[in-house]
Amino acid sequence: MKITIAQLNYHIGNFEGNLAKMLEAVSQAKKEGSDIICFGELATCGYPPRDFLDFDDFIKHTLHSIDKLREAADEIAIVVGSPSVNPVPEGKDLYNSAYFLADQKIKYVQHKTLLPTYDIFDEYRYFEPASAFDIVEYKGKKIALTVCEDIWNIGNENPLYTVCPLDLMIPKGVDFILNVSASPFSFSHAEERLNILRNNVQRYGKAMFYVNHVGAQTEIIFDGGSVVMSPDGKVYEEMEYFTEAVRTFELDSVMKGGQENVQKKDKIALIHDALVVGVKDYFGKLGFKKAILGLSGGIDSAVTAVLAQRALGKENVRVLLMPSQFSSDHSVNDARELAENLGIQYDIIEIKDVYDAFLGKLSPIFKDAPFNVTEENIQARTRGTLLMALSNKYGNILLNTTNKSEMAVGYGTLYGDLAGGMSVIADVYKMDVYRLARYINKDGEVIPENSISKPPSAELRPDQKDSDSLPDYEILDQILYEYIEKVQGPEEIIALGYEAALVHRILRLVNINEFKRYQTAPVLRVSDKAFGVGRRMPIVGKYLS
Amino acid sequence: MKITIAQLNYHIGNFEGNLAKMLEAVSQAKKEGSDIICFGELATCGYPPRDFLDFDDFIKHTLHSIDKLREAADEIAIVVGSPSVNPVPEGKDLYNSAYFLADQKIKYVQHKTLLPTYDIFDEYRYFEPASAFDIVEYKGKKIALTVCEDIWNIGNENPLYTVCPLDLMIPKGVDFILNVSASPFSFSHAEERLNILRNNVQRYGKAMFYVNHVGAQTEIIFDGGSVVMSPDGKVYEEMEYFTEAVRTFELDSVMKGGQENVQKKDKIALIHDALVVGVKDYFGKLGFKKAILGLSGGIDSAVTAVLAQRALGKENVRVLLMPSQFSSDHSVNDARELAENLGIQYDIIEIKDVYDAFLGKLSPIFKDAPFNVTEENIQARTRGTLLMALSNKYGNILLNTTNKSEMAVGYGTLYGDLAGGMSVIADVYKMDVYRLARYINKDGEVIPENSISKPPSAELRPDQKDSDSLPDYEILDQILYEYIEKVQGPEEIIALGYEAALVHRILRLVNINEFKRYQTAPVLRVSDKAFGVGRRMPIVGKYLS
Repeated sequence: MKITIAQLNYHIGNFEGNLAKMLEAVSQAKKEGSDIICFGELATCGYPPRDFLDFDDFIKHTLHSIDKLREAADEIAIVVGSPSVNPVPEGKDLYNSAYFLADQKIKYVQHKTLLPTYDIFDEYRYFEPASAFDIVEYKGKKIALTVCEDIWNIGNENPLYTVCPLDLMIPKGVDFILNVSASPFSFSHAEERLNILRNNVQRYGKAMFYVNHVGAQTEIIFDGGSVVMSPDGKVYEEMEYFTEAVRTFELDSVMKGGQENVQKKDKIALIHDALVVGVKDYFGKLGFKKAILGLSGGIDSAVTAVLAQRALGKENVRVLLMPSQFSSDHSVNDARELAENLGIQYDIIEIKDVYDAFLGKLSPIFKDAPFNVTEENIQARTRGTLLMALSNKYGNILLNTTNKSEMAVGYGTLYGDLAGGMSVIADVYKMDVYRLARYINKDGEVIPENSISKPPSAELRPDQKDSDSLPDYEILDQILYEYIEKVQGPEEIIALGYEAALVHRILRLVNINEFKRYQTAPVLRVSDKAFGVGRRMPIVGKYLS
Repeated sequence: MKITIAQLNYHIGNFEGNLAKMLEAVSQAKKEGSDIICFGELATCGYPPRDFLDFDDFIKHTLHSIDKLREAADEIAIVVGSPSVNPVPEGKDLYNSAYFLADQKIKYVQHKTLLPTYDIFDEYRYFEPASAFDIVEYKGKKIALTVCEDIWNIGNENPLYTVCPLDLMIPKGVDFILNVSASPFSFSHAEERLNILRNNVQRYGKAMFYVNHVGAQTEIIFDGGSVVMSPDGKVYEEMEYFTEAVRTFELDSVMKGGQENVQKKDKIALIHDALVVGVKDYFGKLGFKKAILGLSGGIDSAVTAVLAQRALGKENVRVLLMPSQFSSDHSVNDARELAENLGIQYDIIEIKDVYDAFLGKLSPIFKDAPFNVTEENIQARTRGTLLMALSNKYGNILLNTTNKSEMAVGYGTLYGDLAGGMSVIADVYKMDVYRLARYINKDGEVIPENSISKPPSAELRPDQKDSDSLPDYEILDQILYEYIEKVQGPEEIIALGYEAALVHRILRLVNINEFKRYQTAPVLRVSDKAFGVGRRMPIVGKYLS
């Protein structure tokens, strides 16, 4: 028996596009003499479809796609994830299902049991969990069909859940396990995934075919890395990251095992590649080609510009350099040098005249009020308005260049440097932005060394440095990580050895700036806890604030 | 027996404040000789606490509050909603529980069974549903304790759920039902609530004491309206809307029934009062006093200004009039007249100089490119920057004045007129904004008649009218309502008699503007489906776009 894994880049709600892509993979698999081809979770509509699932019209489109795939399932069986309708009135209207299509029929439908409802996931908002479990017999083989999270509660040891679907399926006699997933990337996820798969395979002694999505849906990035694991727990194949692929495997050879094919998992390289795909798909799937951003001469905008150029091509990225009277000469030079290294279009607009025009209009009201954050923000908003003007005039989407450390403590101006259609590096802490810059320069200087080595500054007042108002990023990032990723409270963080007053100050800054993050662009997610849809915090809350 | 309902305005994460408020109500109830006092759902921490619930430290604070209330429960019993910890590793870590505290002990804890996970609700993200159901005996009475949604699946007829908790409790012998709720306002909700309560009471023939929250938590508004219903299905008491109240009832008198005390439920009056509370609590709970907004002379900013003045007092609201060369004279006059009617501070800043400064800086790039939306947006963003400058300098929070119709179709400028810390009327369709204006003027002209009767215009280019680019609001609002509130697809809406091309165009406008709504301020929720946390839509989706 031959089994094909189709690791594809779907597009939410693009039924025709997704279907065409799947039918093409079916043709290829047929040519390769495959017996079964497997697609990902909710492949007909893309993942996550969110509240589109509430529309009957949307569900009808998914059923239409299933019908077309059913027709194509003649000499080959097709396994595909898609919503199915709960036939009884009790419970949610839909199931998140894996369809087994063969002989041009719907041969079996296994619903998903474990519905992730945490972080970025909202599955219980839409789906009823499975309450029936069976296996599929096809061409003499018995197959356990599972959907994503269903294999993440091995022997019921995951405290989120109370059921282990495979414990209920395996006793029915199973030759191998199929899993259709939509399992989002984080820089530690590929490793975790292999561990989970290995634990399943070792528990049951069965081979596993694990099919993932690839590509980005707004902020959520899928890395692919679909896996075929032999019953001996060895990785028979780990498919490529961040690239579509359709690959056919001989079951006999997989069952024999003994082969180990895993890829390198370097954190910074993975983040780099994920962000490039994130930018590329955001533009591609929205039908845009061109980006714009402001280059300050600092490291954040430099790294963002490189990622954009690698995602979209140098001809599709343009930048603005917008010095003020507070900008240092080297900032403009560093920015210009980077633009030249990247071969991207740049323009220079000095903002002083606009800034002065604002102050002139405000002076009858402000009178002698001293310079403060107001005037800093006017500079940032003047820049935001100039960037958006080019965006509006030429159709270049503005990329936001804020990093995660700044985003956390609210060190940024709403409608100014926090503007943009997408935040490229706002899930990357400042210390990792430095590492990304070094990684980008590994084969020669792309980002000017000076942008990396100089002390970070917003240059919004004379001789300003980030360190005037923020602790060292090395300490700041560690405390933020404990609070945001590890969900530790103040007492636990202080117990790790950090200064109490500093911990309280930082946690307070995070919490009182929730209102800013509420209004910022989607953030490409590369960690286990990114700002945005996966982290839901009250704005009027008084906790730690 | 006497039972006290405490309908209070909690503050998320403000443990000390919430506890002090509850202890004060306990004292009052004791003075009135009450036997039981009831607070709302998750009253210790406020509702919705969102991902604060993931912090052990946060949960410890709730347990501390329960402990203090337990100490106060000596001659009185206290019923209070609060999280409780799931003692076994299987399932989610927490329950959403109603504590029954008496004789200074935790006498009983009933967990919530039906966990709303739709619209603004994410309860299954945090809580394990109850699997055990019992009743409480106190001073010779048998009491069924329920939490909010638990009474919304009468006889298992709500398709979202498969369990009806009261069906399992009532057979144990029950004298009356208590329900601790946090049930958010929408303009139709108070009516629905009475129907649900009546259906429960009629099904079981038992009296019901229903306790709600009051006040706003960012975008979510609680209207109070707590209810005592007699076994005859009559409303013994419907407590006040939008106001804290602590009221003690004689059980014997409630059981006798025959009394009907309901309040008027006028849609526009309810929306008006809800929005005033929404603005008031947003400021009060964040520790701010003062607001600012731009007055254009149009109806949206006029209505917003009135609501702000009523919420915060005339001394705490200031406005900017920011005419351009495209503004009509009457706009400035209408705005000025409104400011004078309201007795609020106003300043006039002409934006032409700043606008010209922007164009001057851009002209080397734009050259002869024709005037388009770019130049319109520069005007809007200049105004946004001026408003934010005053906001930054004086601590006035910017209120956004966009209505729901505009917000739906993306008729507004990001970082311009879409700026602001809170959107006051963005859940009110344009036709209802007119109704709100008429309601505000019911006892004399507050909003100049001209602001109401003139054709709406953004005044961003010569002789511009909304009707140049949008269909009549009467039609637009109806189609939007079908799509947004009623979740109807294009075919269903066209079948209602609307022109097909228009329906497709409007639905497309809604969907392609998701990126704008993602970046706008929280929207005070007054309908069943507001933009924001209760409506979760993909940005890169291709559905209907």
